[in-house]
Amino acid sequence: MSAEVVPLRPRGTEPSLSPMLALTAPGMNSVNAVILDRMQSEVPLIPSLAGHLISGGGKRLRPMLTVAGAELCGYQGTRHHKLAAAVEFIHTATLLHDDVVDGSDLRRGKAAANIVFGNPATVLVGDFLFTRAFELMVEDGSLKVLKILSRASSIIAEGEVDQLVSQRNIETSEERYLSIIGAKTAALFAAATRIAAVVAEKSEAQEKALDAYGRNLGIAFQLVDDAIDYDSEAEESGKAKGDDFREGKMTLPVILAYARGTAEERKFWEEAIAGFRVEDEDLAHAVALIERHRCVEATRDRARHFAQRAIDAIAGFPAGAARDAMAEAALFAVARRY
Amino acid sequence: MSAEVVPLRPRGTEPSLSPMLALTAPGMNSVNAVILDRMQSEVPLIPSLAGHLISGGGKRLRPMLTVAGAELCGYQGTRHHKLAAAVEFIHTATLLHDDVVDGSDLRRGKAAANIVFGNPATVLVGDFLFTRAFELMVEDGSLKVLKILSRASSIIAEGEVDQLVSQRNIETSEERYLSIIGAKTAALFAAATRIAAVVAEKSEAQEKALDAYGRNLGIAFQLVDDAIDYDSEAEESGKAKGDDFREGKMTLPVILAYARGTAEERKFWEEAIAGFRVEDEDLAHAVALIERHRCVEATRDRARHFAQRAIDAIAGFPAGAARDAMAEAALFAVARRY
Repeated sequence: MSAEVVPLRPRGTEPSLSPMLALTAPGMNSVNAVILDRMQSEVPLIPSLAGHLISGGGKRLRPMLTVAGAELCGYQGTRHHKLAAAVEFIHTATLLHDDVVDGSDLRRGKAAANIVFGNPATVLVGDFLFTRAFELMVEDGSLKVLKILSRASSIIAEGEVDQLVSQRNIETSEERYLSIIGAKTAALFAAATRIAAVVAEKSEAQEKALDAYGRNLGIAFQLVDDAIDYDSEAEESGKAKGDDFREGKMTLPVILAYARGTAEERKFWEEAIAGFRVEDEDLAHAVALIERHRCVEATRDRARHFAQRAIDAIAGFPAGAARDAMAEAALFAVARRY
Repeated sequence: MSAEVVPLRPRGTEPSLSPMLALTAPGMNSVNAVILDRMQSEVPLIPSLAGHLISGGGKRLRPMLTVAGAELCGYQGTRHHKLAAAVEFIHTATLLHDDVVDGSDLRRGKAAANIVFGNPATVLVGDFLFTRAFELMVEDGSLKVLKILSRASSIIAEGEVDQLVSQRNIETSEERYLSIIGAKTAALFAAATRIAAVVAEKSEAQEKALDAYGRNLGIAFQLVDDAIDYDSEAEESGKAKGDDFREGKMTLPVILAYARGTAEERKFWEEAIAGFRVEDEDLAHAVALIERHRCVEATRDRARHFAQRAIDAIAGFPAGAARDAMAEAALFAVARRY
């Protein structure tokens, strides 16, 4: 691979997801058709519950990465449509189980599935979507793809348990946090992008390059997600603001505010993360402390680092619309306020 | 396949699981080693929670079917050990999720994982075991096996949702009940047995014969499980007796008692299944009604039918210790009182 440098955008232009959306629109139409077709079942509760989340306005970022990766590889076939749908089903299954685990009230701006349909159905339909994902992969028939996605799924599940264990633990370090989001978020981003290179029969080096793009983008994406939860300037996210705070999740803004805080501030964080500070005024105080130590900016700076690594990882692919769109998507992931 | 008749046991001898246990002991040692090895994780909560259930004295009937099937096919290799472990992981994952869904207190005579570790961890470790099962299958590398087990997993998940929907619905028919247990229980029994023929590279007809053995055995097994929950003569099952009653599950003893009952009795069942009869005296009354109409015996009679179909399904395989053990296991499944 060459060491070609991806050109910088003109100063003053806000990065946008539009080129990515345009690049992947035709492919995503096919992927969406597979998603709608394969979430059906003779048990009517299944499409009804799955549809509540799936048609609920998600960004479908992960399958979009598979489609974008296929474009970057110049792949002309259609195998990646089913696989991208499988990726979205794995993601949807984990969202459903997350909402049960976190006892969420809202997801994507509307009542979470567990609130509407109850925990039991939400757990079981999550299981169903997960098994359906594997059926789609088996239909495709590539053991290499199966290995990548089953490994990623296993790592996600491990990361979710790891996050649960670290919840309400003020001692969680930045290193440990990175390891958790590397598992629970970035592993699927990496796998989603990597499998595009597999179906396009690209070299091992190109596979790894796409894996690195997805992994670094996933970390950047999660960092910014976690920053937005404490960002008073963020737009309405559809996610009840301060969720992470109330759930005692150790995300980077908190880890940094704790590290940079005075003894008195640290005492506040210890109480808050332990679950003894759950009022609106406590959240307001937390946001103020995070602002005082510029922890949202610091988290975005960390995200920018990973986004840049993502961009540089695909520098060896031919210049063109696909590479530009993927690079801009990484910058967008850092800059977004929702 | 020949139409050879499997000889009947001498009258008066209670069927036993011992020949099956003896037949599969060496294979199960290897399977158990894989299970213990592959439930490990760097996240200590995972082996601890998984081990709570896995080392909790389960019968490991499903992997045993894979091992027995391999013996029946004269298979000399070791591939089935990993696959049998995968089958047990799929089963364990569904048990963990079932306990969350049902809000169970007891499992295998001790506190259920959800009680000890909480619902969130139980859901997530279930997910982990499920993904680990797929990793094991992918390592084996047979797309045919992957297809059989991913399809079975999908059917199980569908069946679990279906059961949830029919819960507390007095109108559930015997046909619908059979369809539900065919999905939630028998599909994995069928797949577990069938994959033995696949690794042994037997004919399509032999694969189907083992599938039929497992499927019919699974139905018989579940029928008797459901009968035992209302059987006043059953030994301590480790399962809190009357669980199905309190959860409003429409199992065959209830379906038959309702069908055979007077108008007054039907009124009782309607209230009970709707959740308005949850006291010990209500359970006692339910058991009395089920005895009055001989519904435990009728359920065992149905089970006997399916066990006989299981036995006849493998009549085309060579006579010998494996076939005898599998036939006796089917009779045992019907006769057991725990």
